[in-house]
Amino acid sequence: MRGEFKLDFERGARIGLDEALFCENKTVDQIAAIVEAVKAKTGRLLLTRLDPSKHEALLARHVSELEFDPLSRTAILGMPHAELRTPPVAIVMAGTSDLPAGREAARTFVFAGQAYREYTDVGVAGLWRLLERIDEIRSSPVVIVAAGMDAALVSVVGGLISGAVIALPTSVGYGVARGGETALRAALASCAPGITVVNIDNGYGAASAALRISRAIAASQNAPERIRATAKAGPN
Amino acid sequence: MRGEFKLDFERGARIGLDEALFCENKTVDQIAAIVEAVKAKTGRLLLTRLDPSKHEALLARHVSELEFDPLSRTAILGMPHAELRTPPVAIVMAGTSDLPAGREAARTFVFAGQAYREYTDVGVAGLWRLLERIDEIRSSPVVIVAAGMDAALVSVVGGLISGAVIALPTSVGYGVARGGETALRAALASCAPGITVVNIDNGYGAASAALRISRAIAASQNAPERIRATAKAGPN
Amino acid sequence: MRGEFKLDFERGARIGLDEALFCENKTVDQIAAIVEAVKAKTGRLLLTRLDPSKHEALLARHVSELEFDPLSRTAILGMPHAELRTPPVAIVMAGTSDLPAGREAARTFVFAGQAYREYTDVGVAGLWRLLERIDEIRSSPVVIVAAGMDAALVSVVGGLISGAVIALPTSVGYGVARGGETALRAALASCAPGITVVNIDNGYGAASAALRISRAIAASQNAPERIRATAKAGPN
Amino acid sequence: MRGEFKLDFERGARIGLDEALFCENKTVDQIAAIVEAVKAKTGRLLLTRLDPSKHEALLARHVSELEFDPLSRTAILGMPHAELRTPPVAIVMAGTSDLPAGREAARTFVFAGQAYREYTDVGVAGLWRLLERIDEIRSSPVVIVAAGMDAALVSVVGGLISGAVIALPTSVGYGVARGGETALRAALASCAPGITVVNIDNGYGAASAALRISRAIAASQNAPERIRATAKAGPN
Amino acid sequence: MRGEFKLDFERGARIGLDEALFCENKTVDQIAAIVEAVKAKTGRLLLTRLDPSKHEALLARHVSELEFDPLSRTAILGMPHAELRTPPVAIVMAGTSDLPAGREAARTFVFAGQAYREYTDVGVAGLWRLLERIDEIRSSPVVIVAAGMDAALVSVVGGLISGAVIALPTSVGYGVARGGETALRAALASCAPGITVVNIDNGYGAASAALRISRAIAASQNAPERIRATAKAGPN
Amino acid sequence: MRGEFKLDFERGARIGLDEALFCENKTVDQIAAIVEAVKAKTGRLLLTRLDPSKHEALLARHVSELEFDPLSRTAILGMPHAELRTPPVAIVMAGTSDLPAGREAARTFVFAGQAYREYTDVGVAGLWRLLERIDEIRSSPVVIVAAGMDAALVSVVGGLISGAVIALPTSVGYGVARGGETALRAALASCAPGITVVNIDNGYGAASAALRISRAIAASQNAPERIRATAKAGPN
Amino acid sequence: MRGEFKLDFERGARIGLDEALFCENKTVDQIAAIVEAVKAKTGRLLLTRLDPSKHEALLARHVSELEFDPLSRTAILGMPHAELRTPPVAIVMAGTSDLPAGREAARTFVFAGQAYREYTDVGVAGLWRLLERIDEIRSSPVVIVAAGMDAALVSVVGGLISGAVIALPTSVGYGVARGGETALRAALASCAPGITVVNIDNGYGAASAALRISRAIAASQNAPERIRATAKAGPN
Amino acid sequence: MRGEFKLDFERGARIGLDEALFCENKTVDQIAAIVEAVKAKTGRLLLTRLDPSKHEALLARHVSELEFDPLSRTAILGMPHAELRTPPVAIVMAGTSDLPAGREAARTFVFAGQAYREYTDVGVAGLWRLLERIDEIRSSPVVIVAAGMDAALVSVVGGLISGAVIALPTSVGYGVARGGETALRAALASCAPGITVVNIDNGYGAASAALRISRAIAASQNAPERIRATAKAGPN
Repeated sequence: MRGEFKLDFERGARIGLDEALFCENKTVDQIAAIVEAVKAKTGRLLLTRLDPSKHEALLARHVSELEFDPLSRTAILGMPHAELRTPPVAIVMAGTSDLPAGREAARTFVFAGQAYREYTDVGVAGLWRLLERIDEIRSSPVVIVAAGMDAALVSVVGGLISGAVIALPTSVGYGVARGGETALRAALASCAPGITVVNIDNGYGAASAALRISRAIAASQNAPERIRATAKAGPN
Repeated sequence: MRGEFKLDFERGARIGLDEALFCENKTVDQIAAIVEAVKAKTGRLLLTRLDPSKHEALLARHVSELEFDPLSRTAILGMPHAELRTPPVAIVMAGTSDLPAGREAARTFVFAGQAYREYTDVGVAGLWRLLERIDEIRSSPVVIVAAGMDAALVSVVGGLISGAVIALPTSVGYGVARGGETALRAALASCAPGITVVNIDNGYGAASAALRISRAIAASQNAPERIRATAKAGPN
Repeated sequence: MRGEFKLDFERGARIGLDEALFCENKTVDQIAAIVEAVKAKTGRLLLTRLDPSKHEALLARHVSELEFDPLSRTAILGMPHAELRTPPVAIVMAGTSDLPAGREAARTFVFAGQAYREYTDVGVAGLWRLLERIDEIRSSPVVIVAAGMDAALVSVVGGLISGAVIALPTSVGYGVARGGETALRAALASCAPGITVVNIDNGYGAASAALRISRAIAASQNAPERIRATAKAGPN
Repeated sequence: MRGEFKLDFERGARIGLDEALFCENKTVDQIAAIVEAVKAKTGRLLLTRLDPSKHEALLARHVSELEFDPLSRTAILGMPHAELRTPPVAIVMAGTSDLPAGREAARTFVFAGQAYREYTDVGVAGLWRLLERIDEIRSSPVVIVAAGMDAALVSVVGGLISGAVIALPTSVGYGVARGGETALRAALASCAPGITVVNIDNGYGAASAALRISRAIAASQNAPERIRATAKAGPN
Repeated sequence: MRGEFKLDFERGARIGLDEALFCENKTVDQIAAIVEAVKAKTGRLLLTRLDPSKHEALLARHVSELEFDPLSRTAILGMPHAELRTPPVAIVMAGTSDLPAGREAARTFVFAGQAYREYTDVGVAGLWRLLERIDEIRSSPVVIVAAGMDAALVSVVGGLISGAVIALPTSVGYGVARGGETALRAALASCAPGITVVNIDNGYGAASAALRISRAIAASQNAPERIRATAKAGPN
Repeated sequence: MRGEFKLDFERGARIGLDEALFCENKTVDQIAAIVEAVKAKTGRLLLTRLDPSKHEALLARHVSELEFDPLSRTAILGMPHAELRTPPVAIVMAGTSDLPAGREAARTFVFAGQAYREYTDVGVAGLWRLLERIDEIRSSPVVIVAAGMDAALVSVVGGLISGAVIALPTSVGYGVARGGETALRAALASCAPGITVVNIDNGYGAASAALRISRAIAASQNAPERIRATAKAGPN
Repeated sequence: MRGEFKLDFERGARIGLDEALFCENKTVDQIAAIVEAVKAKTGRLLLTRLDPSKHEALLARHVSELEFDPLSRTAILGMPHAELRTPPVAIVMAGTSDLPAGREAARTFVFAGQAYREYTDVGVAGLWRLLERIDEIRSSPVVIVAAGMDAALVSVVGGLISGAVIALPTSVGYGVARGGETALRAALASCAPGITVVNIDNGYGAASAALRISRAIAASQNAPERIRATAKAGPN
Repeated sequence: MRGEFKLDFERGARIGLDEALFCENKTVDQIAAIVEAVKAKTGRLLLTRLDPSKHEALLARHVSELEFDPLSRTAILGMPHAELRTPPVAIVMAGTSDLPAGREAARTFVFAGQAYREYTDVGVAGLWRLLERIDEIRSSPVVIVAAGMDAALVSVVGGLISGAVIALPTSVGYGVARGGETALRAALASCAPGITVVNIDNGYGAASAALRISRAIAASQNAPERIRATAKAGPN
């Protein structure tokens, strides 16, 4: 394994997001070697898509410092980052089956020091459950909406709040749900304007997108005097 | 053209629905010949997918008895059927662009003598427009929901009413909407239970399905004494 | 698990259909917790897509009140609903392999108190088997047709009866059958008018759709004096 | 255009089928040049997918020997082949809209000297139209079934006759019919055994396949003494 | 299981092909019950897609009369049919990996009493292996070509022989081969005229199609005096 | 047309974005009627996907108040909104062919009073053109990246900047580019973390998403004292 | 148009290939502006996908220096590059309909000063046409194979020659050929080893790939003494 | 197994590439039989897609001469070929997960005697890692780029170097990555000119394509006097 990987330790400095270790296509040998390399450098790593069986195998070879969460299949090595001074992100989930994806986002926030709130079982088949909580959700400047099947929740939330909405389609469903493809396409075709979308089940990606926005908000708070730039306008 | 088509004049008697003439894959010659044949028999025909240009061509060759509606691209030959004694069907449309499909359903009802009510521009991006009218919609035993893009309206309506819901996905949208494919799949994957779905832009099919239900209701009203059949129950 | 789910106990009142528990994307922990919560409230639940292995695991942790059917992978908690005073629904199945989907519909009827009749092995490759039984099938106001592969049975039944037809495409087949996708598309493109369709293998959904119609029929029987509403007609 | 094409004049001798000229992707210049080249050699050619506008353009440049049929978009140059001494092939078409594809097959038979019979408007939505004619259809050793939408006719015919069945899916339909893709897949997934399938709208291909079989039958009639070969049977 | 299936014992008489038992979507219980039912009637059955593990389970419950072939996953109950007096069918396979599909066809011929010859490893990447054997292949009036990946063998064989060609696309390959979908589409789009195609890996279907043709040839040999029918020609 | 549409004039108040008029699926009659209705109310409207031919037709019927831009196919009715006090959004376009989509975003900003900067022809095939301008791009808190074909620019930009990145896949390309589908999927599968994506060619949607973020930043600047909410942390 | 594009004049120096102007998604205004800009710099440009109607429009506004070829829809501005001292590339085309794609490759060679030879109508349906010319084709170190439909020619050529093979799938065909998608997938799944593939109808891309190889050969001829580098071998 | 396979021992002589044994669709019995046959002939074989479990099974039946590499799932029987006198091929891999595919290419080079260099973890999310090594990469006349997800690395490398670029899309990723399909399509739609592509995860194919080019270079070095052939130029 020596020399077969090269970590991007400068990513945090460059784009404000640490590189996370996506474990699905990697062998236990590769994961263990990378964890060792990180321990010798920054000592801090988020691991995603870590199957419980792989976690078992890591424990068996004495890679035991990982704080593991089986529902989201994530592990955290080392101490999370210091808390960011940004408002909490809302994570809205249509049903219980959407928890793994939503929780992956939550764990990314834990690692990054970002506050968040979770809202579960608010799918549109029972619209009132959502409407009861919409005012609280609306208070977050950034909202992640995790939903599978037809992802109708995305459009409903998008039509009710003015903050940034990041749709997180999940692979929940069967048949025409096609592993999240229908939820993904429905979110992209949403009738509510200004919805953005990430890959299916990509809780880490949704959280990373939220962190990019949170940082922009935080930077702006630190520099409220930032002068509005004059743009050379377009077509004329 | 002689001998090249054979109409199914017994369909009305057999399944309660007349054969309609789907004009999209037919030449003007074929349509004219079929209209002539019908005039010599029942004198009554619904034509669907009749492009205005084809209607012009029919007029040019003196096929002038058609009552034509350009928005739905339908034409009616002869007198509509006598009014059915059934409650009105609700036709709920997400936006103005869904009118052609919804109107094709309405025209099928006109031809069949079925009462109906139309509800337009009640898409979920502006949820309150729907909620204001939901009680009236709920009073119809059968509701057609025409929506394109992500078809989120289907799930929202399906979660709010107890009657039969027939989703009519439309080809409204672009990109990932893929000509109605996303709306279709979203409707089939709906998180609201008991939704049924017809082909994209198939207003005639949605109306025909509603007519099958309306007839069953009417038949039941005429025979309230129908004794509840005893079923030999399932798995054992 | 505390606080991670919120059941919709009002759904029955709102749309006449209880919420069912779809078990496929849920862990045994989640299912057990939800069953406990239901026992403390209504005491009645239909579970679908419950793998025998998950049922075993539930038994192992003393969740033993479930009445389980392995063929349909359904379980019923508590007493079924009182029998509805509606005519039986026909469940027509093309072949033996379509039984799991058709039986899921049947089990939903058992839970809901709806009468039904099953017809098996009546696929169109042996057309006479169907024609021998078509008169009996025709006597049901609502017919579910479960078929995989090319789903040709859907069109044949749809062309022979006047009642409501709900196509239930199944994942039976291989190669181009693509897990039921071909059956689904064929049913949606059916040459018989007024066919409606539900998601692949969605026996619960087909039954829920039938229940919506049965209720409309029952409501109408109770109120035969319902005056035919006058509709404000469409395009003119 | 000189030197830019090379016709396969030996194909007839090699596989018993002349090369036909598929005109869809060719310019009028290319078609005219090829027709001239054929006239200088065998003098006999079948042209398929020849749009009326291209035929007009050919006439305008004095390519006038073509016997043109606009419905099937075919043209025949020169005299058809001598009549084959084989039984007629049945061409069964679900609806009027399937005529162009079925007629392309018929025209191929005209060119090849093969007898045939056409059966139109026998789709399964009106099953009795088919059943009335099935005995006559059954008398042909080879049957082509042209159908679009859900192509249910293919399975029904395949379950009723013992001869060779060649499914010719057509692009009739819209939405999920997806240009004949659904008819194609349904025919390939047919529940009736031993159905074979050709490309969408490929009437020429269906006829060519029928001609291969007809020739085998004719060859066999000429050599009834052909001794049954002993096969080295399969898995040892 | 009682009453849950209805076999089509008349299929042999009706279309000349016995019903085969497709085991993939059936439980061991269902298969055992059907085998018992057949033993009590005709005593003869072909089983396809029978996994070795299911065969083991059948043996464990004393269903031991099956003659099983693991490579093709087929089993034969009872004596095969009497040998047909037809020339052998050629089964041409591109590579070793295509043997399971090709062998399923061979086993169907064994069951039906049809002679056949197998040709393996004649893929076009080594064209000369095919050309060396093409004259022998050409002597069969019906040729099955089993090939996966790009199925180029289908077009090459189709361009070299005049008999009936049935393409049997196989699921051999990975990535863009997409489980045989590419081979299927390539065979359907073949540049050689008159190729017909069956479903992916459907060796039973390819053999059934060949049997339909063989029977037509045999019938014709028995009735060489069959008078050439006069066809009412098409478009004029 | 009377009564056939219902505009959502409250959307601006509710989610901070006015409803725009998507003209693609609407007739000239419908557009004219809606413009009239808006003039009678707020007097301000953004029209998207307005073909030049439809604009001509509008002019012909004296709907002449529209400020039209043919490249982006947008028109603005009335005065744009007052300038927002937010930093400019960067619109980065891979090539000249991506201008229509990028310009639609720019026009949305013009209408909304949002400052922006355009960067054209910075595709990765000539990487240095991008690297020369990356520092300026990086100064925007929100960056829209418009790219078709393989959309590689999205990942490259996402790996170089820390702000919010909204990918706007365009339909530029042919063959496998499949109308923007490949660009869309590539953007969603981006190896750079935290990228969000909107529908193909949806410049209006990308701009709307940027406006949601800009507003959150502006709100935060106005309330720097907003206390960091304490979140009830995730999995335990 | 000023400032809206930025040409990559250094591309020739950097990767040995000039930037070509892909005209399909560009307006006539944009093309004219770019041609003017190039005339003021290098004076040399290859334009691809230039529709005859756009070429007419360019002539109408006095952009008359283009040497236009309608079959390949290419135009050349200025003098081609000096002839390269490399062996000719073979362009093998299955049929007449593949000429536009193959000719686009040829025109790219004309512009680049690369020798080439064209071989037309050598599709595998008439295998001997190819075999007669294979020795000449084999003498080229780089061979482009343009084929649509099933692209079987790619595998056949790939199995017969040892040089580099670049498959150029074309959009020739209909139905399952799906605009070249089947040819593309078949070429990628080819059973002949070491075939590479470019986008559908991308004659320019195929030629560019050939030029990359030709240059490597030429560079090697100029430096035959290039010492074989010692590679640090793989897996250990 | 006797007689069921026929190896192509002449392939090496014919196209310069030995036949490799693709093990995925083959049984252990088939693999063992083929290895024995090869040992009796050339004694040299490359095996690809050999699962560790199949390798175990081969060892268990004393097929022990294979040199096995589990990461690439390849095995080599006998001595590799003599080293070719060609410059090393560069194998550039985006991330650790792309190693199996890239290593399969490397192992093919080991077997063929071709020098190579590996570059790992140079994906574009951390662009500088690539730019640091690009000069060394550029020195190879042939470069394989292995990348999954969005395959953006392919375009970036293609825009920076002038040598032949062979894209090797990998199945790394999830959701929209669809098993490498997105990487494949992105590589084919690359905005950098002259990129060629092989099947997903086809390391053997990428290496074979590189070997075809390497041989052409070597042949040219041996015959620098090869006179530039005069081509009969295309369209005029």
